[in-house]
Amino acid sequence: MTTYTAPVKDMQFLLHDVLAVSAADIPGYADLDRGFTAAVLEEAGKVATEVLAPLNAVGDREGCTLENGVVRTPTGFDAAFRAMKEGGWTALDCDPEYGGQGLPYLMSSAVGEVFVSANMAFNMYQGLTHGAYSAIHAHGSPEQKAKYLPKMVSCDWTGTMNLTEPHCGTDLGLLRTRAEPQDDGSYLITGQKIFISAGDHDLAENIIHLVLAKAPGGGEGTKGISLFIVPKVLVNEDGSLGARNAVTVGKIEEKMGIHGNATCVLDYDGAKGWLLGDLHKGMRAMFTMMNEARLGVGLQGYAVAEAAYQNAAAYARDRLQGRAVTGVKNPTGAADPLIVHPDIRRALMDQKSFVEGARALTFWGASLIDRAHHGDAAADGLIGLLTPVIKGFQTDKGFDSAVQAQQIYGGHGYIEEQGMSQFVRDARIAMIYEGANGVQALDLVGRKLATDGGKHVMAFFDMVKAETKAHDGDDRMKAFTDPLKAASKQMQAAGMFFMQNGMKNPDAALAGSTDFLHLMGHVCLGLMWTRMAAAAHAALDAGTEDSAFYETKIATGRYYMARQLPACGMHLARIESGADPVMALAAEAF
Amino acid sequence: MTTYTAPVKDMQFLLHDVLAVSAADIPGYADLDRGFTAAVLEEAGKVATEVLAPLNAVGDREGCTLENGVVRTPTGFDAAFRAMKEGGWTALDCDPEYGGQGLPYLMSSAVGEVFVSANMAFNMYQGLTHGAYSAIHAHGSPEQKAKYLPKMVSCDWTGTMNLTEPHCGTDLGLLRTRAEPQDDGSYLITGQKIFISAGDHDLAENIIHLVLAKAPGGGEGTKGISLFIVPKVLVNEDGSLGARNAVTVGKIEEKMGIHGNATCVLDYDGAKGWLLGDLHKGMRAMFTMMNEARLGVGLQGYAVAEAAYQNAAAYARDRLQGRAVTGVKNPTGAADPLIVHPDIRRALMDQKSFVEGARALTFWGASLIDRAHHGDAAADGLIGLLTPVIKGFQTDKGFDSAVQAQQIYGGHGYIEEQGMSQFVRDARIAMIYEGANGVQALDLVGRKLATDGGKHVMAFFDMVKAETKAHDGDDRMKAFTDPLKAASKQMQAAGMFFMQNGMKNPDAALAGSTDFLHLMGHVCLGLMWTRMAAAAHAALDAGTEDSAFYETKIATGRYYMARQLPACGMHLARIESGADPVMALAAEAF
Repeated sequence: MTTYTAPVKDMQFLLHDVLAVSAADIPGYADLDRGFTAAVLEEAGKVATEVLAPLNAVGDREGCTLENGVVRTPTGFDAAFRAMKEGGWTALDCDPEYGGQGLPYLMSSAVGEVFVSANMAFNMYQGLTHGAYSAIHAHGSPEQKAKYLPKMVSCDWTGTMNLTEPHCGTDLGLLRTRAEPQDDGSYLITGQKIFISAGDHDLAENIIHLVLAKAPGGGEGTKGISLFIVPKVLVNEDGSLGARNAVTVGKIEEKMGIHGNATCVLDYDGAKGWLLGDLHKGMRAMFTMMNEARLGVGLQGYAVAEAAYQNAAAYARDRLQGRAVTGVKNPTGAADPLIVHPDIRRALMDQKSFVEGARALTFWGASLIDRAHHGDAAADGLIGLLTPVIKGFQTDKGFDSAVQAQQIYGGHGYIEEQGMSQFVRDARIAMIYEGANGVQALDLVGRKLATDGGKHVMAFFDMVKAETKAHDGDDRMKAFTDPLKAASKQMQAAGMFFMQNGMKNPDAALAGSTDFLHLMGHVCLGLMWTRMAAAAHAALDAGTEDSAFYETKIATGRYYMARQLPACGMHLARIESGADPVMALAAEAF
Repeated sequence: MTTYTAPVKDMQFLLHDVLAVSAADIPGYADLDRGFTAAVLEEAGKVATEVLAPLNAVGDREGCTLENGVVRTPTGFDAAFRAMKEGGWTALDCDPEYGGQGLPYLMSSAVGEVFVSANMAFNMYQGLTHGAYSAIHAHGSPEQKAKYLPKMVSCDWTGTMNLTEPHCGTDLGLLRTRAEPQDDGSYLITGQKIFISAGDHDLAENIIHLVLAKAPGGGEGTKGISLFIVPKVLVNEDGSLGARNAVTVGKIEEKMGIHGNATCVLDYDGAKGWLLGDLHKGMRAMFTMMNEARLGVGLQGYAVAEAAYQNAAAYARDRLQGRAVTGVKNPTGAADPLIVHPDIRRALMDQKSFVEGARALTFWGASLIDRAHHGDAAADGLIGLLTPVIKGFQTDKGFDSAVQAQQIYGGHGYIEEQGMSQFVRDARIAMIYEGANGVQALDLVGRKLATDGGKHVMAFFDMVKAETKAHDGDDRMKAFTDPLKAASKQMQAAGMFFMQNGMKNPDAALAGSTDFLHLMGHVCLGLMWTRMAAAAHAALDAGTEDSAFYETKIATGRYYMARQLPACGMHLARIESGADPVMALAAEAF
């Protein structure tokens, strides 16, 4: 049985010492004083520890079941979902006009981490609803907003994203679901959608499906795609629920993990739908959901790793096995605890320094979203650049981190009863959905680096430069700034390689795309650790009663810089080997 | 549904082009001509494809069940096990005196790979039996050998290893199982053993448990441990089966994978046992099993990756998604196959170059075992050094490789129906059992490097040097020898760091142990690829009808050298950062 405690202190450090939120010039941030954010996070932590975490294993074991067309969620999910709704946790950053609390996206992300760590599969019911809410909020007509949003903010109705079909996932231009216009302005939607997370369940009275489909006249490929609102139960003019729509659950998939979330095949058989946003501009509206979902998945990457780490650290402190090579540390016990062994610490430090770095990047990214929401174009461009990194790097590393946590348990980690296997199996999906990580790398190298003439990546480099420059002459910071400078240069060299070779042969850039995503991920976390170390030094200099906390931050950061940033040189070497080794073989030689 | 085809051609290349087995001065190797090995491997491949592979998913889905104290294996396992026995596949390298075929260990390894790729969980029933056979063969009295070995060679009786107890795995000094001597020379064994693979099942009429226990007078810790033969069913003087022994199955563990193999809690309640080998020298006898098991697990690491790779490559060729960035490759289709995309190829090349390199290392290792079996002390020392690398590196990378294969399937890879999840879940255990990989790293750095005054690691370096020297001036080989030289130097630098720092602070060496294991793993595979490339060039120079095969080998090797060996620099940097970053935190700071 695993346990989970919200890392409130670490989050407070980021919000107040590093991001200095209440002093930031972002609307709404002035209200985020230490007392307020602590109260919110502690309350969320209580729900997570007491309500959600105990259901994590239950959800994994029972999974969801399809009985006579009705999906049943695992024991306890219904009561927990009601508790989440009643606590107002579904509405944190939603628009007050529709019943939301209007908090910054940053706060919603911090709380989201806590809930995901406690129970990733459960939290998806709400997470997907938020994505659908955002798409309707951004692209819906006033009538559509009034009709759907209040119920979605409260999660009385939940939402889904319907993109994938059996023959196409990434390549949406191939999709076959059709939308046939009706005289009343609605459409009849027909086709099969697969891998629909939270596609059906018994937690809400209605589900608002957002469905990509092709309406007549839109042309070939993704150009012909539109986005439709297709409620599971039709909504009457007065807002009451009417007849069942023609959408049914074909089956629930048996998956490697996230068993608590129903992943459905949905069959649309002339289901009534309404256009959301402009006709034939569905991809744009869909990307409102998708970008948010990608950040949410990047958050899942490290949030699950955090939960796994907490349990691994506790196990390493408790489990007696072997003696320290430097001499007995626990003379009254039959053996020393695992944590005395250097390789166990190496594994714990890998996890801890990754998770805390990724949290910093995610929180910073969330603050950029808040800026972008208020019209800051530079922040919008920067978060666009960072999104594939947050999604791809953090989920790859989050999975590795969960695997390392499981490894600390030895054989016990392989037994389902212990719960460590679930973290690994759950974390695995985050590398795949909302655009597999290879697609993230393609998005980064093939698109985002060059967006607006490369302006955003140049701004990123300037930011790194400014950060290292700010600590010039501060010897305490050299263990951070030197590796960060070196890694940033390696990232620039990789970008240069792409520019010099990618024009004549795009394969030369794309063969290095995953390596570049990881290289940039390390630079990002190096930047975050430099900022965190500087903030910790500042707190220590100012005099603090909790010097151990800040010293631990600095030591953890030093580990990341010394032990993780050397990966950048490897990624650069791989990138600079170019396309030839990668593309050498004929397809039939594999 | 996954499929599997034995890579006979790749194996033949290793046996004959690289290892030149029939010309090797090892007893029994002269008989291994091309025709003979091809016939054996093709026949094994037929069994694997037709009998074992179709049961792989069945075993995963059904698992084993415990009904009224009796363990039932999945549907079809019984018939398949009979087919294996009848085909003589359980006896390949066993002693002809006890009904074995007396083939070299190398051949048994090659066939073992084929069976493990097809169905890892199934093959463990036989694999564990072979380990127990070896321990009895090496340490048993003539009577014990006569009594047990013929039945174990035929797998009429299977075997197990009983080491772990609930409170101790790695630290066997803590074990509590007791052996009480009886007047008739037997012992009564009492205690609980856990994680016993193939611990009980319905495939054989008897199971010979080898059990570590403490007999009186042996002193503290591992010194007091002895190894006992404890049959599930007592064997009468005439060889017939007698009464049930006092060993019962407490439960079957629910695991992340290898569901087809029953992992049991075994309760010994005064069970009758007989000492195997010398009293209080149980650890030595146990290591006969353990070393063999570690090589077998290292083989599992890449064998499962091979099966996963085969399916991923086929999927990448078939699945149409997106268009090549360099222009349409499949104009008559709605999209190009996945395999046109550079990042998909990158993932496939990572897998292919690892699997083929690991196979070469494993086969070479097996040939060292064959030499060692015939009294070659240098070979014995070298395989002792290589064992933790083969076990640790190949299972870490094999798991990564299976994860990459699963990733190529996108969302479909996460669905159990497709079978890719099973490869990942099955491969995961290989990093854990028979000594978790952290323990392998400890064994390598804390013990094997210094064995016999460092003689074996020096011999390894000499071997690498000789290999690169042999190709001096051959420009075609520079893409191999240059990276190999560089990587070997990095490994030497790491060894130097350990020597200079490990004496005053052992933590300084052990904090880098896992990195060293991986660094050495890459050097080993770099050496293997250099040998394979040289052999391929020789074949091409000699004139061959199958130049495409040899050219593919060279290209795959070039990929490994260009894209994998750069990891060595990262590992060295991590190692040279020493113990401080790793050990900086107090235990309570985690």
